[in-house]
Amino acid sequence: MGRLSQRRKVHKYVLGSEYPVRHKEDVLAVEEPLEIRLTGPAGTMTYSVTMRTPGDDFDLVAGFLVSEGVIWEADQLVSERFCAGGDEEGRQTFNVVDAQLRPGVAVPELGRNVVTSSACGICGTDSIESVRRTSRHSPAQDAVSVLPELLAGLPERLREAQALFDKTGGVHAAGLFSVHDAGTRAELECLREDVGRHNAVDKVVGWALREGRLPLSGTVLQVSGRASFELVQKAAMAGIPVLAAVSAPSTLAVQLAEEAGVTLIGFSRGSGFNVYAGHERLSA
Amino acid sequence: MGRLSQRRKVHKYVLGSEYPVRHKEDVLAVEEPLEIRLTGPAGTMTYSVTMRTPGDDFDLVAGFLVSEGVIWEADQLVSERFCAGGDEEGRQTFNVVDAQLRPGVAVPELGRNVVTSSACGICGTDSIESVRRTSRHSPAQDAVSVLPELLAGLPERLREAQALFDKTGGVHAAGLFSVHDAGTRAELECLREDVGRHNAVDKVVGWALREGRLPLSGTVLQVSGRASFELVQKAAMAGIPVLAAVSAPSTLAVQLAEEAGVTLIGFSRGSGFNVYAGHERLSA
Repeated sequence: MGRLSQRRKVHKYVLGSEYPVRHKEDVLAVEEPLEIRLTGPAGTMTYSVTMRTPGDDFDLVAGFLVSEGVIWEADQLVSERFCAGGDEEGRQTFNVVDAQLRPGVAVPELGRNVVTSSACGICGTDSIESVRRTSRHSPAQDAVSVLPELLAGLPERLREAQALFDKTGGVHAAGLFSVHDAGTRAELECLREDVGRHNAVDKVVGWALREGRLPLSGTVLQVSGRASFELVQKAAMAGIPVLAAVSAPSTLAVQLAEEAGVTLIGFSRGSGFNVYAGHERLSA
Repeated sequence: MGRLSQRRKVHKYVLGSEYPVRHKEDVLAVEEPLEIRLTGPAGTMTYSVTMRTPGDDFDLVAGFLVSEGVIWEADQLVSERFCAGGDEEGRQTFNVVDAQLRPGVAVPELGRNVVTSSACGICGTDSIESVRRTSRHSPAQDAVSVLPELLAGLPERLREAQALFDKTGGVHAAGLFSVHDAGTRAELECLREDVGRHNAVDKVVGWALREGRLPLSGTVLQVSGRASFELVQKAAMAGIPVLAAVSAPSTLAVQLAEEAGVTLIGFSRGSGFNVYAGHERLSA
């Protein structure tokens, strides 16, 4: 607990039961950014920033460098260490790994992204702040409300409309529903499928932009799979007030949803779901 | 069919039945690279290359730009078109989209990756060729063979060893099994979990590098979820001869597996599985 998973309070809806809304603790997988820095003769450069679950970070960096074709033998990686100092506030985040490569190992694209700050912290708060800074369509003031029974039925409606999944069993989907009649009725406006979950959402948001529909107020975005930071980011940037996932959210997804005013639903499975953020949009 | 999904011949194993190996056609979701180019006053630059299922590509590009905070109104995007020419061989791949932004729209990082070639094709073959060019640990010559019954049992063994999933229901796993006794016995060598499927695999590969275990000959990598191009790439780069996924592979994952000599298993569910590439490693 702590670095790998965290407890959060959720509203658990069990439809048709005597007490349909329960307060419950749920355990979430931690998601945090990891900055990978490479040190070579020319100095230290940021090579990549990736979202990951903390733990085995030296393995993650080494394996990423193998997958990228940068190294392929153990002795090409001289050392790995967590950036020693803290961030601007002195916290050691353990979210920056500095990998030193053997002289002569060629690094594609090295030469840009030179690290100029002595600070070596990066954390979820920075990622959330970055979304806040760039977002033009905040869903925070969106007063839409949704009936729990309506919300619980969306995964099945998404699934029924998924043409490609029926054929392949191998794609993710994102479906945009507009909410009507005080949260009692929803219309499927746009459904997109893709091997990449993030692509399916981008296709929906891009459709909305091109149709002049941004911000997407009064809507629910129902997605297959899990809710990561990245998916909440996409919802927030498009002004979508409710994001519902069939599977689990990560810690950082929930934190961003709270900050950005997105209602975040997880484990939506027909008979119920969990509300991780923005519970006020669920109508009684 | 065609742009979104494709038929492939597979070996379908149904264990315990009268004819345990069947020839069958399976329908796969297409995965292809998409290059996003932005045109502004300074010229045309490659902004991003992403793997996606073709279709609604203008929506994908527009939505990606919204998610990145580059644009937020329809009129900031002057036009989108598929790069007009063909690739070096004259094929129109429909895998390069050129987006023209309204003057004054600021593009982060623009200025690098200037497009210098007049060719505007990119296709799965290029992605495969790129892996071939950088890979130092080809699994192609790995003579390991695996008993079908052993392979079918690996998802359950992975699941049983997944500590974080039990708590959160929200993480992916990758488990590296070494194969012994002529393919009849497998030992779990390394299990890693992460909110990102690719991270879980990188953590396993990085562990192997640091332990001096690359190339990972004589192993099976069992993963939760789907098998994308990226996962097969990681297996190929680490010299892993067998990659088994619980869910569906994409077209490009299968093509790369064939080229790189990786045996690719999908829909591995205890009672059977499909073999998409490298069937010769299944022992009778």
